[in-house]
Amino acid sequence: MTAAVKSSVKVFGGMLQRMTHASAVCKCEMTFAIFLPEASGPVPCLYWLSGLTCTDENFSQKAGGFRTAASRGVAMVMPDTSPRGVTIEGADDSYDFGSGAGFYVDATEPKWKDNYQMYSYVTKELPEVLKATFGEKLSSKASISGHSMGGHGAITLYLKNPGMYSSVSAFAPICNPTAVPWGNKAFEGYLGSVDAGKAHDSVELINGYAGAPFPLLVDQGAADNFLTGDVNQLQPAKLEEACKAKGIDLTLRMQPGYDHSYFFISSFIEDHVNFHADALAK
Amino acid sequence: MTAAVKSSVKVFGGMLQRMTHASAVCKCEMTFAIFLPEASGPVPCLYWLSGLTCTDENFSQKAGGFRTAASRGVAMVMPDTSPRGVTIEGADDSYDFGSGAGFYVDATEPKWKDNYQMYSYVTKELPEVLKATFGEKLSSKASISGHSMGGHGAITLYLKNPGMYSSVSAFAPICNPTAVPWGNKAFEGYLGSVDAGKAHDSVELINGYAGAPFPLLVDQGAADNFLTGDVNQLQPAKLEEACKAKGIDLTLRMQPGYDHSYFFISSFIEDHVNFHADALAK
Repeated sequence: MTAAVKSSVKVFGGMLQRMTHASAVCKCEMTFAIFLPEASGPVPCLYWLSGLTCTDENFSQKAGGFRTAASRGVAMVMPDTSPRGVTIEGADDSYDFGSGAGFYVDATEPKWKDNYQMYSYVTKELPEVLKATFGEKLSSKASISGHSMGGHGAITLYLKNPGMYSSVSAFAPICNPTAVPWGNKAFEGYLGSVDAGKAHDSVELINGYAGAPFPLLVDQGAADNFLTGDVNQLQPAKLEEACKAKGIDLTLRMQPGYDHSYFFISSFIEDHVNFHADALAK
Repeated sequence: MTAAVKSSVKVFGGMLQRMTHASAVCKCEMTFAIFLPEASGPVPCLYWLSGLTCTDENFSQKAGGFRTAASRGVAMVMPDTSPRGVTIEGADDSYDFGSGAGFYVDATEPKWKDNYQMYSYVTKELPEVLKATFGEKLSSKASISGHSMGGHGAITLYLKNPGMYSSVSAFAPICNPTAVPWGNKAFEGYLGSVDAGKAHDSVELINGYAGAPFPLLVDQGAADNFLTGDVNQLQPAKLEEACKAKGIDLTLRMQPGYDHSYFFISSFIEDHVNFHADALAK
């Protein structure tokens, strides 16, 4: 189960490759991107989970993250945000559900469950594909980060898989999706109810968390229109409250003037890559 | 003659703004982008001239250049690559002529001369618009860089306007456009003959150069398909030869494995911004 190279380009001394493979989990051809720094031995891997509407390409083109990944000797893996090329009625009708909006859950609803298995794809199949394809180039260590829907993905995947990821961070994550329209739509659609989404909600998972404290780095633009608009889709205060109650070492940086875009991400990605590189070096 | 803000986003502590204004020179509405670093006084300005098919947006989204511009206190200005929104038959037929391909010359051919005045736009009108719009935020100092067609633009505008720019650099410039298909097409189309293009050809201008030596930083991907393909559109060896004959201090860095893309630019933009910031600080 190896992936084939779709394209390859040199950047910051390493190689950025777009890869495709037949996915047994999503029952379609999946594409992901990987940045491999120039290195003499195995390097750890930082997963980046993208937000609504994104593909594997947005981070690579806009975040400027490979500069620090190269200097710290960390690979980066950018999965797609949903299955592609499958024909499901309504999958392309809205930006926040279906294509580009897999929400990093395994759908249980009949219409979606055959393909929309992004949780299992990212946590199980993709690591196996990486191992089979890149072998000794990658160490067994991994960390995880992401943006918006992908920030939700990063925190929930970390919490649901103790020991799998050495560290976790997020940019403008959807912290409490069961309490906001984006999450309600996704959980009702993929899982049949908002209640079923509690198992994929960072705030809910932290409320029930009984493990050891861990550091969590979150950057949030204070001028983010999804925070300051009519609907607060992100709810960072709820995350802060939940972490405080459990002694989780959250560093929540409200960044004045910044919005929800990749310009915001690019401004702080160096800190996140360094945060993960430090954890991966332990 | 001030420009109006089209959009505004915070990045690396500064503001990136897309601006529009009525252009008397190009007889249409022109858009440019400007990155203004956080600063207490006037900052110098680095012009970035983009390549074929680009708009004012490519550099901002993909180059990662504002990180160093912010830390060095340099503003960056990204003009568009052609007039837009004007109706000229054939202007949208090819990627290397017309829209997105103004070549930084003043057209003399009847069909194009009313609008395609990118040389005068970048060297005369745009600096006036910047001064009128941003006043004391910008100092009178400027430097210039660019990519491919914009590398050609940067070197030729520097050579044709002694004293206007403190320094010049380029990524994969079209060094000798009168000798290659891209330049031939542009000069025949806009100026009526390839021969008329000699006044806008870096190699030709350097061959006739009688001024003082100056430093010129050029990065060129050694795996650039426009260098290694059937046609060498770039001709860096010709630039090297011309500079050597005139004692011009060319640093031509052939970067092994790199292509013609913004991934290449992003990998070395820090060096270029530092090169210009050093010159602008003198």
